[in-house]
Amino acid sequence: MREQLYEGKAKRIYRTDDEHVVLVEYKDSATAFNGEKKAEITGKGRLNNEITSLLFLMLKEKGIESHFIKRISETEQLVKKVKIIPLEVVVRNVTAGTLAKRLGIEEGRELSTPIVEFYFKNDELGDPLFTVDHILEMKLASSEELNTLRQKGLEINQVLTSYFSELGIRLIDFKLEFGKDETGAILLADEISPDTCRLWDSVTNEKLDKDIFRRDLGSLTEGYETILKRLGGHQNV
Amino acid sequence: MREQLYEGKAKRIYRTDDEHVVLVEYKDSATAFNGEKKAEITGKGRLNNEITSLLFLMLKEKGIESHFIKRISETEQLVKKVKIIPLEVVVRNVTAGTLAKRLGIEEGRELSTPIVEFYFKNDELGDPLFTVDHILEMKLASSEELNTLRQKGLEINQVLTSYFSELGIRLIDFKLEFGKDETGAILLADEISPDTCRLWDSVTNEKLDKDIFRRDLGSLTEGYETILKRLGGHQNV
Ligand SMILES: Nc1ncnc2c1ncn2[C@@H]1O[C@H](COP(=O)(O)OP(=O)(O)O)[C@@H](O)[C@H]1O
Ligand SMILES: Nc1ncnc2c1ncn2[C@@H]1O[C@H](COP(=O)(O)OP(=O)(O)O)[C@@H](O)[C@H]1O
Ligand SMILES: [Mg+2]
Ligand SMILES: [Mg+2]
Repeated sequence: MREQLYEGKAKRIYRTDDEHVVLVEYKDSATAFNGEKKAEITGKGRLNNEITSLLFLMLKEKGIESHFIKRISETEQLVKKVKIIPLEVVVRNVTAGTLAKRLGIEEGRELSTPIVEFYFKNDELGDPLFTVDHILEMKLASSEELNTLRQKGLEINQVLTSYFSELGIRLIDFKLEFGKDETGAILLADEISPDTCRLWDSVTNEKLDKDIFRRDLGSLTEGYETILKRLGGHQNV
Repeated sequence: MREQLYEGKAKRIYRTDDEHVVLVEYKDSATAFNGEKKAEITGKGRLNNEITSLLFLMLKEKGIESHFIKRISETEQLVKKVKIIPLEVVVRNVTAGTLAKRLGIEEGRELSTPIVEFYFKNDELGDPLFTVDHILEMKLASSEELNTLRQKGLEINQVLTSYFSELGIRLIDFKLEFGKDETGAILLADEISPDTCRLWDSVTNEKLDKDIFRRDLGSLTEGYETILKRLGGHQNV
């Protein structure tokens, strides 16, 4: 019997024989609006596990390290265990979602330069936007660490944007999580998938990400399959 | 007949013979929660006009310039006309209001260091919190201007905190507005009053500010009279 360390909204984390490694199982659960909207969507776990694995491998080739070790089954992967910094690092290229609302701008407008936002990862508080001052007061990260998170976010954005662009996909925005490994080094962790990115078809602007679920725009797995296919991954038959 | 340039929630602005000077009339209107809660409170306009005048004079003595020229009647003052930067600069010493909610901390906890926040002054959007990135994207202020606003906010906080402290009042937090004069210089503007500050009695922690109205805690004007009295101003008889 595997020992479960944590069950989140989209994944379960299990202990392994190696204390520095955990197993991540991707669930078929979809949630939105801080858990208010929920559904089970067959195939979502497999798709996100495959897409995240391909993206972490691609990032590694471009010199960006992450917690990813290897995919070990349709819905499971091994990753380096880290202590997660409780910040959602959101990088945005185009207005959408809460940014469009906050700025009072329609969705889909190209930003003059990418925006980095930090949200306190705290379901009870509804993941509120935090400024640097809030983060320092709550001691979630130091000033230097915030600069590192910001720089890493922007660097990953450049790589992902140009990679997706070649696949006919616009990277609108995405959320990253980082953690500290046993040496204290900051490592990219969690997932990069259509659950955590906004991805629009470059030609049609069709949404291929979790907004399909949030806004009832059709079949979530069809969107995710499109992403996986363009990434060159397995296809569902 | 005076020509009204603007009517806001708490004040009216009129043109004067001098194009660089406007007349501010303080109204008796009280509003809260972005205008959702409203009342007319006799005496409020006079109290805020007197308190703001005394505070701007005190700040000037301590070397902090503002738009304030002089009080000309119970409810009116002359100020230098500026182009307001549409940011509410909030400085906080103690958790309260939306900060307490955002951080998930009870009200009344001393912050380890003062926090400066910027809110987009936009009633339609509900005055949302903006990070530096949001402000730059919306071109509301430059990076250098933001540093200036932050530094001025912290400097004013030091002066106000120690001044109020001698009067037996804790300065919990406050909101400032700044504008640019005809030379482009950034000048402290708008008002500093119990409408825009949280002020608690140092001994009893009794609230002496607009939270009396927001939270139905008793007589607003009694609280404001207490502030005015401690500032050494006129008393209502
Ligand atoms: N390498 C890692 N080591 C430890 N925890 C991780 C790692 N990568 C991600 N996590 C955490 O594991 C959980 C993943 O499950 P998820 O369903 O996404 O949870 P949540 O609902 O909290 O977002 C998250 O809390 C995430 O921060
Ligand atoms: N020196 C000044 N010159 C021009 N406008 C000013 C000056 N000081 C304050 N203002 C603006 O005048 C208005 C004051 O009225 P108020 O009732 O506070 O308005 P609001 O409801 O918009 O906050 C505000 O919009 C404020 O930004
Ligand atoms: Mg998650
Ligand atoms: Mg105002």
